[in-house]
Amino acid sequence: MALTTLYMPKSKLIGLLIFVFTISAISVSNDGDPVAKTMEDFSGYPTSESESCSSGSLSSLSVDTQSLQRQIEELSSFSDSPAPSVTRILYSKKDVLARSYVKKLMQLAGLSIREDVVGNIFGKWEGFNSELAGVATGSHVDAIPYSGKYDGVVGVLGAIEAINVLRRSDFRPERSLEIIFFTSEEPTRFGISCLGSRLLAGSEPLVSALKNTVDSHDISFFEAARSAGYAQDQDDLTSVFLKKGFYSAFVELHIEQGPILEQEGISIGVVTAIAAPASIKVDFEGNGGHAGAVLMPQRNDAGLAAAELALAVEQHVLESGSIDTVGTVGILDLHPGAINSIPSKSHLEIDTRDIDETRRNNVIEKIHQSAVKITKNRKVQLSEFKIVNQDPPAASDESIIKAMEDASKELNLTHKLMISRAYHDSLFMARVSPMGMIFIPCYKGYSHKPEEFASIEDIANGVKVLALTLAKLSLG
Amino acid sequence: MALTTLYMPKSKLIGLLIFVFTISAISVSNDGDPVAKTMEDFSGYPTSESESCSSGSLSSLSVDTQSLQRQIEELSSFSDSPAPSVTRILYSKKDVLARSYVKKLMQLAGLSIREDVVGNIFGKWEGFNSELAGVATGSHVDAIPYSGKYDGVVGVLGAIEAINVLRRSDFRPERSLEIIFFTSEEPTRFGISCLGSRLLAGSEPLVSALKNTVDSHDISFFEAARSAGYAQDQDDLTSVFLKKGFYSAFVELHIEQGPILEQEGISIGVVTAIAAPASIKVDFEGNGGHAGAVLMPQRNDAGLAAAELALAVEQHVLESGSIDTVGTVGILDLHPGAINSIPSKSHLEIDTRDIDETRRNNVIEKIHQSAVKITKNRKVQLSEFKIVNQDPPAASDESIIKAMEDASKELNLTHKLMISRAYHDSLFMARVSPMGMIFIPCYKGYSHKPEEFASIEDIANGVKVLALTLAKLSLG
Repeated sequence: MALTTLYMPKSKLIGLLIFVFTISAISVSNDGDPVAKTMEDFSGYPTSESESCSSGSLSSLSVDTQSLQRQIEELSSFSDSPAPSVTRILYSKKDVLARSYVKKLMQLAGLSIREDVVGNIFGKWEGFNSELAGVATGSHVDAIPYSGKYDGVVGVLGAIEAINVLRRSDFRPERSLEIIFFTSEEPTRFGISCLGSRLLAGSEPLVSALKNTVDSHDISFFEAARSAGYAQDQDDLTSVFLKKGFYSAFVELHIEQGPILEQEGISIGVVTAIAAPASIKVDFEGNGGHAGAVLMPQRNDAGLAAAELALAVEQHVLESGSIDTVGTVGILDLHPGAINSIPSKSHLEIDTRDIDETRRNNVIEKIHQSAVKITKNRKVQLSEFKIVNQDPPAASDESIIKAMEDASKELNLTHKLMISRAYHDSLFMARVSPMGMIFIPCYKGYSHKPEEFASIEDIANGVKVLALTLAKLSLG
Repeated sequence: MALTTLYMPKSKLIGLLIFVFTISAISVSNDGDPVAKTMEDFSGYPTSESESCSSGSLSSLSVDTQSLQRQIEELSSFSDSPAPSVTRILYSKKDVLARSYVKKLMQLAGLSIREDVVGNIFGKWEGFNSELAGVATGSHVDAIPYSGKYDGVVGVLGAIEAINVLRRSDFRPERSLEIIFFTSEEPTRFGISCLGSRLLAGSEPLVSALKNTVDSHDISFFEAARSAGYAQDQDDLTSVFLKKGFYSAFVELHIEQGPILEQEGISIGVVTAIAAPASIKVDFEGNGGHAGAVLMPQRNDAGLAAAELALAVEQHVLESGSIDTVGTVGILDLHPGAINSIPSKSHLEIDTRDIDETRRNNVIEKIHQSAVKITKNRKVQLSEFKIVNQDPPAASDESIIKAMEDASKELNLTHKLMISRAYHDSLFMARVSPMGMIFIPCYKGYSHKPEEFASIEDIANGVKVLALTLAKLSLG
């Protein structure tokens, strides 16, 4: 049928796909609940059970929820913290294991694999019109300490399953379809979020910064990359840059990480814009001293300065008057960190975001003013106030929004247009390609913690909308 | 002369001692500034240079400031953080090395050594009237992370030098003189301050608590003790208890850890009372979540709860209206501790002290009320509010105060009566023995940080006052 597909009018093709997906919508398996396995128990890639899905039988046209659920569980076991939490840090042993696991799945999906020097992984399904720019999808699988199984993972394993769905429907893309496994969307190890996609988007400042970037154990970025098998021969990270127009479209499938879709009982979120994130590092210094011997008037406590600034961040965010402004102090460290020692140093890392860049930047300015005021009142020093990143928001591409909406409608899935308050690799891919994002509901909007959860049914819906959207976008 | 001393009337003996110390006061060496050495460089005990002091020459009657200074520098090199900071945690390799170093010095001072099951070390100089209760002195050498060289150390190495001074003066004690090296005065590893002296003072609750006490790496107290060579055969810590009256007096030499003596240019502080310390552990729990996705009204941020409580501690301490009330949040940890994750857990350790126990306990009650109020306002849970210890203040013994004052006068050293705002092993020794403390000035009152400093001249003055005080108290 592949050859006939080649000449099939788009209308008929989409018709076929809708037929396929309508059936699959009915036949989504509900017994996808996996049995917990040890690392020894599993092969690292689908078992014969799921491989049998590549036969042409009717059931094979459905999303293989059992394999997808199993893959999510198996990938979650590559973790440096105990289940149900997941901790997977850039270039760690567990990260490297997760990478080889995903590459195996890409191979089994018949994709040709390439990796760049920082470990962005590309799995390509060659289109029959290879002169045309390709269509890309993907996400990340790195996980902050003690987080969950679904953030990013759904957009990587879900994309591979979307390709399988398209193959099982005997679809053949005109534009090549490419899955991207992005390196380090989370800032955990080097304090840089979306490291891989920022580089793909051609960030020269990041290329220079990474030459002198070290982690909390003073391991340099390049040392770490080499330990994972990357950046072996060359230090030139500009080789990672993508030319603008290299892709005709980029679409990312992701859990909402917010409560809206679940609360409103809607299956699909069609993202129209991504909020603008900024992150700030602040260090205060005082004289410290003995907790018993130094009287209160003689103190300049760097820890209390940090406490005041943390509360000031909340205050300035609330003052913005918009529900869309958020700010968080996720890291607050005291030195020396002993019960009977007045903190002589404190370190805060602040995250603030908004869909309105000006409003967010006003919050940053107010936070800086508070930090300065605190140094005066408490006679501490502001030894650092560094805006690590201050990214602009990104808008989704109109034609991709339409493709995602059409796909949802054709699959009889409820959808709504919404904003992404969390940032994603899509924020940076938008700099070099038209961009769109598909959200699915997640339990109570929980994310970045072990309770993070998305049902396999919701994930399957997301996979189908992604597959149909890719199919639409892949037609030249 | 030893035998004649035996029958010499006290008045004449003290006369001799004053003669000795007056000369030594003039001949204190000022070139005690040591050359930095590597661990390989030094023997771990005094060189022939200082050993020659045990000859009967006139100079030998002085405090051997060169050896004492060298010993302070050498002991400071047993550290898990880089110089000039010192980090020496209970039962760590560096703690064990420091212990053997001090035991060598005790042996060279002709003391007979015993150790109890938790590693309190006793170096005894047998008095000629061994039926009488002995006189004890001593302090600790464990050091909180990134602290200094003098806290505790002056009271251990200084005590050994005081014994050497007495020996060089051909003095012989009637009551036995004993130097105690106390185990873990600092609470760093197990959250228990003055662990050794609390047990010596017969703390049954501590004996039970230690059965289930683990450090931050889940290493049990007994596991740790055994790794350092203690508590091998038995778990019965009551063997450590001292009978009340076992010592007729306990005197501790220590740096002031406050600025008063230095500011007023006074050589010796005679401590009349030790402030009452209390320590509290607090845990808050919230829902955490993604720093971008969870809107402000939906948050219950455990980190902001901790920040509010830290500031409340300061507020309640200041409300007490007394300069003698102090409170500190030295530890504040956030979980998971990622910039883009709302803290789901926070942990605080609070230290509060006062010379007035009731006033201090009122502060603790107010801190608890604030913690409860914060849980209501922020919808977080107060998963722990534990008063780890809440010790009463201790008063020095009148006769020991008189002995310390007389010694200062006879040595022509300025002194003042003062309060110890820091607690010490003396606080607990006071439960089983008449107690006194001798303070010496330290630079700007700095302590618990690398800048902690006491001049060798001030230390020598403290050693002489200690030696003469011990001599006075050792006479039956």
